[in-house]
Amino acid sequence: MKQITKHNIRNSLRRIFLYHGLLVRLNTMGVTRVFSYTLAEGAGVTPEQVRKDFSEYRIRGNRRGGYLTVTLLSEMETLFNRDRISNVILVGMGNLGQALSKYGQFIQRGINIVASFDIDPYKQKARADSNVYPPGRLQEIIERFRVTIAIITVPDISAQEVCNDLVNMGIRGIVNFSPVLLKVPVYVVVNNVNLSDEIESVVMSVSRMKEE
Amino acid sequence: MKQITKHNIRNSLRRIFLYHGLLVRLNTMGVTRVFSYTLAEGAGVTPEQVRKDFSEYRIRGNRRGGYLTVTLLSEMETLFNRDRISNVILVGMGNLGQALSKYGQFIQRGINIVASFDIDPYKQKARADSNVYPPGRLQEIIERFRVTIAIITVPDISAQEVCNDLVNMGIRGIVNFSPVLLKVPVYVVVNNVNLSDEIESVVMSVSRMKEE
Repeated sequence: MKQITKHNIRNSLRRIFLYHGLLVRLNTMGVTRVFSYTLAEGAGVTPEQVRKDFSEYRIRGNRRGGYLTVTLLSEMETLFNRDRISNVILVGMGNLGQALSKYGQFIQRGINIVASFDIDPYKQKARADSNVYPPGRLQEIIERFRVTIAIITVPDISAQEVCNDLVNMGIRGIVNFSPVLLKVPVYVVVNNVNLSDEIESVVMSVSRMKEE
Repeated sequence: MKQITKHNIRNSLRRIFLYHGLLVRLNTMGVTRVFSYTLAEGAGVTPEQVRKDFSEYRIRGNRRGGYLTVTLLSEMETLFNRDRISNVILVGMGNLGQALSKYGQFIQRGINIVASFDIDPYKQKARADSNVYPPGRLQEIIERFRVTIAIITVPDISAQEVCNDLVNMGIRGIVNFSPVLLKVPVYVVVNNVNLSDEIESVVMSVSRMKEE
């Protein structure tokens, strides 16, 4: 069995999503055949990397004369398994948590937020229409909906504690929006999404371009 | 002059942020010296990659016997230039835009949202305290605050048009939260942050781990 680190899984998957986005655009533009170097250029990687990623996820296609755009799209969408609905929970109904709980793109992508949690009784009451529960009901709801994925949008001071509790209750994948790098057991996948980093990387890239 | 693609800049910077986060944690735990393989393991890359990234950003340290944690932190923070404030604008005050405009971490990281924009007159009025302007005032405010960075949180249907307008008004870096891959001239940096992808990658990683 090949050992794949958590981060390797994430980076290659991130690229597959990127290739998919490029293919959707190329397809809309009427491009019926693409080469690995086209995708490589769009994604800022080498053509070898594209082919390696395709191979890792068993995405096939006729290389000679290029891949068929629609075939690649269809293979990737089978991979993404867009028909399957994944039940996820969201913990922390601050501004970001509330925005994510209302984010329309998720359900289109099969991501179904079955319940949100917050320690603030006001948030539980004020948003009774949208399934905001107290943390005391986490275990029950995780079991009832067989949830294995959680989105964490709590303040950084409580992120690690919330994470530990979730893992103890059976959560195996965490999307962490708090600026804390979470410690988890090896059998748990964490994706740390740091919004400040995303913006700062653009700020820095722009200032580097100015210097050149 | 070495040609660096937009994506290369972003990926190496992303790793620097990751190393920085690990170093903050190690420092809190009292670890005074680290080796490239420690950071490599935490970031899911090779030690060679860590050293290559350090070299690209001119982060130095005594390799023999390990790097001093505080020295690395200090060099990285100089690189991040945390004292400098970057003025940015935010376009699209839907749920996500509103959440980001109130996101407390940004200002701690020197990211200052000077103004937000929305075509909806109700959003302009309802949030008069928080500088929500009509798009007609974009040019004036971009010039007044010398803004070069914009965050786009408009619906996907208008994202490319908004992007084109911003580039014409002098914006050189875009953080795009819409699920559209934006087309920009080569002198503009775009960071496409796709929140559905971030969640879906965890969903897929967890299901792959179950299969193994």
